[in-house]
Amino acid sequence: MAYFDNIPTVKFEGTGTKNMFAFRHYNPDEIVLGKTMQDQLHFALAFWHTITMDGTDPFGSATMERPWDQEGGSEMDRAHRRVEAFFEIAQKLGVKYYCFHDIDIAPTGETLKDFYANLDEITDHLLEKQNETGIKLLWNTANMFSNPRYMNGVASSNRAEVFAYGAAQVKKGLELSKKLGGENYVFWGGREGYESLLNTDMGLEMDHMAKFFHMAVDYAKSIDHLPVFLLEPKPKEPMKHQYDFDAATAMAFLEKYDLTDYFKLNLETNHAWLAGHTFEHELNTARTFGALGSVDANQGDYLLGWDTDEFPTLVIDITLAMYQILLNGGLNKGGINFDAKVRRTSFKAEDLLLAHIAGMDTYARALKGAAAIIEDKFLSDIVDARYASYKNTEVGRSIENGSATFESLAAYALEHGEEIEMESNHLEYIKSVLNDYLV
Amino acid sequence: MAYFDNIPTVKFEGTGTKNMFAFRHYNPDEIVLGKTMQDQLHFALAFWHTITMDGTDPFGSATMERPWDQEGGSEMDRAHRRVEAFFEIAQKLGVKYYCFHDIDIAPTGETLKDFYANLDEITDHLLEKQNETGIKLLWNTANMFSNPRYMNGVASSNRAEVFAYGAAQVKKGLELSKKLGGENYVFWGGREGYESLLNTDMGLEMDHMAKFFHMAVDYAKSIDHLPVFLLEPKPKEPMKHQYDFDAATAMAFLEKYDLTDYFKLNLETNHAWLAGHTFEHELNTARTFGALGSVDANQGDYLLGWDTDEFPTLVIDITLAMYQILLNGGLNKGGINFDAKVRRTSFKAEDLLLAHIAGMDTYARALKGAAAIIEDKFLSDIVDARYASYKNTEVGRSIENGSATFESLAAYALEHGEEIEMESNHLEYIKSVLNDYLV
Amino acid sequence: MAYFDNIPTVKFEGTGTKNMFAFRHYNPDEIVLGKTMQDQLHFALAFWHTITMDGTDPFGSATMERPWDQEGGSEMDRAHRRVEAFFEIAQKLGVKYYCFHDIDIAPTGETLKDFYANLDEITDHLLEKQNETGIKLLWNTANMFSNPRYMNGVASSNRAEVFAYGAAQVKKGLELSKKLGGENYVFWGGREGYESLLNTDMGLEMDHMAKFFHMAVDYAKSIDHLPVFLLEPKPKEPMKHQYDFDAATAMAFLEKYDLTDYFKLNLETNHAWLAGHTFEHELNTARTFGALGSVDANQGDYLLGWDTDEFPTLVIDITLAMYQILLNGGLNKGGINFDAKVRRTSFKAEDLLLAHIAGMDTYARALKGAAAIIEDKFLSDIVDARYASYKNTEVGRSIENGSATFESLAAYALEHGEEIEMESNHLEYIKSVLNDYLV
Amino acid sequence: MAYFDNIPTVKFEGTGTKNMFAFRHYNPDEIVLGKTMQDQLHFALAFWHTITMDGTDPFGSATMERPWDQEGGSEMDRAHRRVEAFFEIAQKLGVKYYCFHDIDIAPTGETLKDFYANLDEITDHLLEKQNETGIKLLWNTANMFSNPRYMNGVASSNRAEVFAYGAAQVKKGLELSKKLGGENYVFWGGREGYESLLNTDMGLEMDHMAKFFHMAVDYAKSIDHLPVFLLEPKPKEPMKHQYDFDAATAMAFLEKYDLTDYFKLNLETNHAWLAGHTFEHELNTARTFGALGSVDANQGDYLLGWDTDEFPTLVIDITLAMYQILLNGGLNKGGINFDAKVRRTSFKAEDLLLAHIAGMDTYARALKGAAAIIEDKFLSDIVDARYASYKNTEVGRSIENGSATFESLAAYALEHGEEIEMESNHLEYIKSVLNDYLV
Repeated sequence: MAYFDNIPTVKFEGTGTKNMFAFRHYNPDEIVLGKTMQDQLHFALAFWHTITMDGTDPFGSATMERPWDQEGGSEMDRAHRRVEAFFEIAQKLGVKYYCFHDIDIAPTGETLKDFYANLDEITDHLLEKQNETGIKLLWNTANMFSNPRYMNGVASSNRAEVFAYGAAQVKKGLELSKKLGGENYVFWGGREGYESLLNTDMGLEMDHMAKFFHMAVDYAKSIDHLPVFLLEPKPKEPMKHQYDFDAATAMAFLEKYDLTDYFKLNLETNHAWLAGHTFEHELNTARTFGALGSVDANQGDYLLGWDTDEFPTLVIDITLAMYQILLNGGLNKGGINFDAKVRRTSFKAEDLLLAHIAGMDTYARALKGAAAIIEDKFLSDIVDARYASYKNTEVGRSIENGSATFESLAAYALEHGEEIEMESNHLEYIKSVLNDYLV
Repeated sequence: MAYFDNIPTVKFEGTGTKNMFAFRHYNPDEIVLGKTMQDQLHFALAFWHTITMDGTDPFGSATMERPWDQEGGSEMDRAHRRVEAFFEIAQKLGVKYYCFHDIDIAPTGETLKDFYANLDEITDHLLEKQNETGIKLLWNTANMFSNPRYMNGVASSNRAEVFAYGAAQVKKGLELSKKLGGENYVFWGGREGYESLLNTDMGLEMDHMAKFFHMAVDYAKSIDHLPVFLLEPKPKEPMKHQYDFDAATAMAFLEKYDLTDYFKLNLETNHAWLAGHTFEHELNTARTFGALGSVDANQGDYLLGWDTDEFPTLVIDITLAMYQILLNGGLNKGGINFDAKVRRTSFKAEDLLLAHIAGMDTYARALKGAAAIIEDKFLSDIVDARYASYKNTEVGRSIENGSATFESLAAYALEHGEEIEMESNHLEYIKSVLNDYLV
Repeated sequence: MAYFDNIPTVKFEGTGTKNMFAFRHYNPDEIVLGKTMQDQLHFALAFWHTITMDGTDPFGSATMERPWDQEGGSEMDRAHRRVEAFFEIAQKLGVKYYCFHDIDIAPTGETLKDFYANLDEITDHLLEKQNETGIKLLWNTANMFSNPRYMNGVASSNRAEVFAYGAAQVKKGLELSKKLGGENYVFWGGREGYESLLNTDMGLEMDHMAKFFHMAVDYAKSIDHLPVFLLEPKPKEPMKHQYDFDAATAMAFLEKYDLTDYFKLNLETNHAWLAGHTFEHELNTARTFGALGSVDANQGDYLLGWDTDEFPTLVIDITLAMYQILLNGGLNKGGINFDAKVRRTSFKAEDLLLAHIAGMDTYARALKGAAAIIEDKFLSDIVDARYASYKNTEVGRSIENGSATFESLAAYALEHGEEIEMESNHLEYIKSVLNDYLV
Repeated sequence: MAYFDNIPTVKFEGTGTKNMFAFRHYNPDEIVLGKTMQDQLHFALAFWHTITMDGTDPFGSATMERPWDQEGGSEMDRAHRRVEAFFEIAQKLGVKYYCFHDIDIAPTGETLKDFYANLDEITDHLLEKQNETGIKLLWNTANMFSNPRYMNGVASSNRAEVFAYGAAQVKKGLELSKKLGGENYVFWGGREGYESLLNTDMGLEMDHMAKFFHMAVDYAKSIDHLPVFLLEPKPKEPMKHQYDFDAATAMAFLEKYDLTDYFKLNLETNHAWLAGHTFEHELNTARTFGALGSVDANQGDYLLGWDTDEFPTLVIDITLAMYQILLNGGLNKGGINFDAKVRRTSFKAEDLLLAHIAGMDTYARALKGAAAIIEDKFLSDIVDARYASYKNTEVGRSIENGSATFESLAAYALEHGEEIEMESNHLEYIKSVLNDYLV
């Protein structure tokens, strides 16, 4: 059961290569800032986009050629073939982590009980593959947005019965996380939001979400397996408004409901853009709140208003993102998960490899560029010089050490206020030199 | 010194009137939901847009005809004339509150000391006019974004000296607030944000902002005049990113820095839209966080990407906003301030009256519409029915009363999960009937 | 085979009614501007959104309850039931026109030949229903975007074979148009555009599209049935860029390729918004080019970046659209087609009626409002007064009659240029009074 | 009168340099695709952003330090100093072309007659500097958007007198173009559009614009100096809608009014983005219509909704733009004009040099990257292979040579339609390799 026999394991060959199935920049063993690229980047493969995504879009039907789906047998037979194909791809690429939604890996069956049984069987298979390959579970999550019961959300649903159903899915998900040694557990609130405020009680729905999350923490503790919980912000789509709009909004929620000890953020490039932010902004925000957990690697299109989930190739954006990650001291238990889908027109199975190579090379370029920025202190020198007045002047130190008051500062301003001389930011020069750091 | 002698005090005349200078909908003494319209709406006039705005835009020069600016004399003479003109307009309109930035009312002079002196003199005049007319100060604020020293922000400036200068302005502002009996004090962080992340330490800047706000609270306490402090969210413009991006972002900040006891939000329609939200969403968010303070009444253009600050005329949007305000039990110490400017082509002094009449009539329509929605329980019945399962079912009550756990809910779902029957939201019907509530 | 036996034919009952299945504003026989509402509005039902749409979205599966799809039998049995259900709905609503894509009405079968045969059989059924009910075909079109062969477009495909396949679909479509007496034939270029410029020859693709359209005209002439051809502009989605971006772009194309004699525009509200325009702008543009053909009635969400295709309920937008349609002297052979889908959460079959009632009532409100604006000359008086200088002054008349030159105008300006006095546009007042025209 | 004595002429020094005032990539004499970089790029300096822009924005006052403006004397003295400073900057940078608005170079005086006289005097000075330095006029234009008389547009104004005043400005502009040997003459319709459709007759305004342009052509012919006329598309700002929305819209207008023989397009990066397009899209569109005239070089911010006019530093965007320009065979009489302003915080005079160096280096990088794409046939090979079916198959050739009809194509599709096999576009791979072409 090998689907890519004709393609050898992908290796680093540099930019001179004509081999499409080679890394041009990602060299797993190359040392960057004291660690191997592999350790710096912690790449993960997403089960859904890699294995089950079929190329449908709102205006067109499936295009993808997926040999593992085209062979016969039962749904469970197919599910097992998918596991094999998935690990084969991960091994071809040398990726050491993976992520999944519950419904990606196993058929939901007729009843929840069936679903549980299917999950048990398939996770046995996953565990076997983990042991065989050394590949680890970065995170799992529950798909609580596709089934019609979730049309109005899960924890934020207007229906208590739906809340309960979601609880049952996440309970099982935490058990599977324990079984598979998952490091994190993700909540993307696809329909946790509203379609219209007219029929919505926003405060009540947020209260319910907080109850749900607290129950998840309690249950995780009770089974002695407490992964890092990750909220994944997205502003809208499919809902008109999603409660985890962006990093700051998610933090407001976590603070309000006393959840910051257990929750961090899983940030996605395309979601950042849809919220009107750069990706580096979202990472910086999370960092500022001590909540940078993990990353969903993709990109969108600045001129399109929906989630295109493209493989990342914009080097400048990803370099500035990697710079934030490095300033954070890395992602700790998090990783870089390719939550990206091949274009509907890249429908060959081999495109899955080509697209991940593109994404991994982009992050490798970004890592090298960001590392050079750090080693040269290119940006940190600029920042240090700009804020020097808080260290070099008495008034600055009085602000920093807490001795300043409005009275003391007004006294200063009355005496010296007209002497302030601003300095040029020279932003055009900085942006120009930055280009020389892009790999 | 009367500038509008030819126009009588504006009165309610109903939609049948041909008199441009009459209210078609705002009838100050009409009772709506048990209070007069005037009490429900707490309108305020903005000094800047009403008096000092000259019609320049990034591509064109001043167009406004403002007789109070065209007479001769010193800058202080002009400032006094402006006070007279302002109160005359407020009286013509029957508006009972007003708002100002420090630099709107008095020339900044050569030094901060001059500025303080000018402010003292002009606020004497304002106080006299307040006493004469019964008009009150809704809020004042400091303009800390126009002067070149503030090019990189105030509290978030990279320069401690600038932080100090801003402190001196706000210190004075709080003293003037006390002198004039101001109910609230506003911070709009026009340049509190960044032009580029490349040269910015976001965490440090947010820390500094928090220090600044705590100093403001301390100083207000020390002079025995603690107004409600209001943050005014705006996502961007003039900066690439502003720290008070939207209501939720502002709350994350206030929570992180332990400022929620002293700060509420001043929400603006146009700012909401620029952040990708409806105005009612922002009001609802603030309400959910217990932080709805006051309102800046204007509107933008959904298809334009900058702050157009138009007078509000979109009845449906304002009706849904008023509905949120009524659900909040009103604005308490806040009000509805017309932070709106006449179009550059509405350059006659009389347009100031026409535009405010338009805005006040829009809010009057909205109040009447929202009141009818409440009286008929049109939306609240829909909401109550939708969430009934949290009251009517055992599983729902277990969630509400805190007895539910993932185990109990999973047990429920295993037994009853396949029985859930969703109900149609009938949103098209609701939106259609809503139109019959628009006045 | 009646699916809505429990719901009587929808009648006008006015705003006082509590009957959800009644018109509150649309009174088909009421006379507005000398014609019945029914004649002014020419409503049409869209086969796809009404009958075959199942409620899937990019994040969720089907929700819709459609009894005609849930009974058994062959695909052709289902197709016949769909025709019955469709006409039943049209009759319940009193709608007199309809529209369809070829693949909506008949299964595509294994081969093109099968498809042709299925279309022949189903159009016999449609013709029978037309004769039975008096309902007419407003337009038909070919779905040339869902099948994988069309992933890169049709006429703009990189593959000549795909171009040919599309030609075969449109050829059949024109024959069916003749058979059913269709008034118009629509091209919506769903994938006529590009996913990326990197692999695209835009000039070549536009040339091919023009060839395709000329062949369509030639074939229509050859079978003696020349409907009005309609291009339907949309800026993007599913493609990154679509060649018929907006009304003006479509006109540039039609002019360049000499197609204006045969083609007009089918304009959609939501598409206008996605292109950054108001709907009334697009209608006005088409009117200016003499190319206003027909209307797809829906609305989007100004804050969302994809095509939500909601039923129209925003009265102000539709009133201004109807004003443009009335200024155009109506839509001539065109109509108002509800290219709108019920929300995924309005999944009951009865929601199809409720949603169309909402849309029809909105257009009825709009018609009444726009008619009053015309009868009162509210806006036309303003326009006439504003441009009066082109009639009332010598220099204005010289421009209009073509006698002016730069020399004559410069001579005028040198003599009188400093005397120009502008007048206020009073836009705030106009927008406020406009609200009194909204029904 | 030298303002930059302390800074030597800017030279190419490569990326190794630490000299801020050196080119890192732009080497004027380096040969790229058979021509010097200087000849390939035809850089031009914009008088307004370079010399008269003062750093005001809608929320803040002037920040720029401009020694030529701070010395004393009359307005005409200042105007002469500005000319000197401008040419000094051009020479420091080695830029060989320039552009201006009439009001940039000379004070408008009290009357049009004064203005004409001032323009005559200053253009004598300009001509002298041209002769002295060899620098040439790429284009001039009239500022017809800043003065209050133009609040409703010029040719599209509601006032015939304003139309006449504009004619007088352009008449003079054409005479100055002749005097200075200008290659092109630009129209940017800053206020040619509408603030609201409510008071606008769009058809009439477009007719008037066409009349104005025809008069301009006639006058240019009459004085025996016919420059290339260039329309500059921009979608909005300051107006709600501008008639030259984008390249395609401008072409629709030019075609409708029979102006394509005399008019081409001047395309700006930031304007493209605001219209929802990439810059390369706009260039490709103009190229397709045979109307690519000249380029305004800047960039915006994909996440901001107004015209930020930043100096171009995004290498990927500009590389794809240069690729279009090279495919066009260059810009012929056009050039690359830096219609870009230094940030408000880059307020030192030296920032003008730094910012232009950044922009010129970006275009140099882009030229080198685009040239390599062409030399390697990287993209053209992909395009040729994708469309091969139009050359390699009989059905494809029949479409190209015009022999195909719907009958012949349908016959083909009936026989071979099910045999079509699509090929993957491999877009992820293409985008990844593209990065290796970025310099």
